[in-house]
Amino acid sequence: MSIRVGIVGYGNVGRGAAMAVNAASDMELKAVFTRRDPKSLEITGSNISMLPVSSAESKINDIDVMLLCGGSAADLPEQGPYFASMFNIVDSYDTHAKIPEYMAKIDAASKKTTAVISSGWDPGLFSMMRVLSESVLPDGKTYTFWGKGVSQGHSDAIRQIDGVQNAVQYTIPVDSAVDAVRAGKKPELTARQKIKRDCFVVAKPGADKKKIEEAIINMPHYFADYDTIVTFIDDAELNAFHSKMPHGGMVLHSGNTGDNSHVMEFSLKLESNPEFTGSIMVMYARAAYRMSREGLFGAKTVFDIPLSYLSEKDRLTLIKEML
Amino acid sequence: MSIRVGIVGYGNVGRGAAMAVNAASDMELKAVFTRRDPKSLEITGSNISMLPVSSAESKINDIDVMLLCGGSAADLPEQGPYFASMFNIVDSYDTHAKIPEYMAKIDAASKKTTAVISSGWDPGLFSMMRVLSESVLPDGKTYTFWGKGVSQGHSDAIRQIDGVQNAVQYTIPVDSAVDAVRAGKKPELTARQKIKRDCFVVAKPGADKKKIEEAIINMPHYFADYDTIVTFIDDAELNAFHSKMPHGGMVLHSGNTGDNSHVMEFSLKLESNPEFTGSIMVMYARAAYRMSREGLFGAKTVFDIPLSYLSEKDRLTLIKEML
Repeated sequence: MSIRVGIVGYGNVGRGAAMAVNAASDMELKAVFTRRDPKSLEITGSNISMLPVSSAESKINDIDVMLLCGGSAADLPEQGPYFASMFNIVDSYDTHAKIPEYMAKIDAASKKTTAVISSGWDPGLFSMMRVLSESVLPDGKTYTFWGKGVSQGHSDAIRQIDGVQNAVQYTIPVDSAVDAVRAGKKPELTARQKIKRDCFVVAKPGADKKKIEEAIINMPHYFADYDTIVTFIDDAELNAFHSKMPHGGMVLHSGNTGDNSHVMEFSLKLESNPEFTGSIMVMYARAAYRMSREGLFGAKTVFDIPLSYLSEKDRLTLIKEML
Repeated sequence: MSIRVGIVGYGNVGRGAAMAVNAASDMELKAVFTRRDPKSLEITGSNISMLPVSSAESKINDIDVMLLCGGSAADLPEQGPYFASMFNIVDSYDTHAKIPEYMAKIDAASKKTTAVISSGWDPGLFSMMRVLSESVLPDGKTYTFWGKGVSQGHSDAIRQIDGVQNAVQYTIPVDSAVDAVRAGKKPELTARQKIKRDCFVVAKPGADKKKIEEAIINMPHYFADYDTIVTFIDDAELNAFHSKMPHGGMVLHSGNTGDNSHVMEFSLKLESNPEFTGSIMVMYARAAYRMSREGLFGAKTVFDIPLSYLSEKDRLTLIKEML
């Protein structure tokens, strides 16, 4: 029997999750719930209902796992506990500093459901690598580099500037920093030494480009602490070359045993950040379903779930074929 | 209270495990068990007993987890079930094809103990990455490359050849193959296209070097299917530059979501293969201890154990600091 999946929120991550459910041989996408007019959204695949979020409660017997694909700032703090009280859920809550508080609320709501929170790639896969590598080599130092990839937050910040029509910002690890860590040097790195920022900006007609550039590179928090390059392009070029959502990054751990040093590295190069994030959520939907069947209720993170719960293959097949 | 650890077998991995236990703040090395004359072996650290293997049974109340550091061919098939019937154990059993059979025997023996098998880096960490990446991106292809590193099996094979006094063989991934996989090309690769073999050989005085070289590069299974380079050096050079046991490798997964492609990579660069393997075993000793306290008995693999069991830090600290 297929795992019956629902998706709440049909933005980029929701669409990515829908693709991943359709690619999984043990799952079936039953419904997508949206706050927009359901009639305004299209989804490929028959037998998939596009429904208003308010109708989710009536589907409690038709859906095994609900994927919450809304944002961490406004959507999940409200939707997470609400849905977890009725459904097994998976989300990718990513406000790192507030995870313990969020988890406590989810845990209180999921007394008879399984709720996997913060299941993207950071938090998520990168968090797993940080814990794994620090546990193998406690005498060591862990580095997380993000990029090359589009940062929605930084792109939005540029778009707020007077005279800017559109903008895309790429976060890029600094090669010399990555090389030093890979060489086992354990450098102390400032924000500027780790990351540089590459901005492609479309200015409104007649706007003062020099002023826009100054506003960007001096913007506190977002750009002032980094080496930032601003390139003005036109709308056609932005659409042609900067409309994808690539991302990636790496977790590097440089550690020692006695006089010997070791480097562990995990890296991602992603052509579509939301589709990859959706794929991870779908993998954890499998875990949520299986754990709920075993009565393992409550809030779970990537640290709590054995890998055998994530695969379409059963445990003995994994041990035989992949160990 | 510290986790009380015993080590069975004091070769390279056993010594590496002893170092890792001493580096862990929550563990204490109580005893090392050897089949050699215990008086012939030295160990640093007070209060650590060096004992004959035959005395292990009498220490059943003094040791929480026993690390079995013997070889997979001769030692573990016998020692594994024997020790698992009395102690929580961790081993690094690495005969991939026989793992299911070995696991069944360990599982039958560990009715009231927890037994973590095959916990090195391959099988072990690399197996985890294969399962994780295939589960995120089922539409994809996984590649494992070993090296650059010393292969004891291949070094031994050279030493069997007439006229060879000593030899060290490095397994080296072929750059063009790795680059093709990293570029998302999903190539079909032969053994020769993936790996090359670099041999440093000390010939006995008067030996026919041309004949030795021919014997190496034409040796079936070990060298004939690979591009093999043989370099003759003297004993002093071998000891000076080739006496360490570095190793490493990478697991690459190239996968797709719709039209977008993604590459996941996990790599290791290790200055000491046995010390790193020992460190992984010690990390899983922590898991074996914790699982046994929860009554989670039987044979376990890296696929069965949540990451939160591996860290010195408790679950909530991990969630707060590392998620």
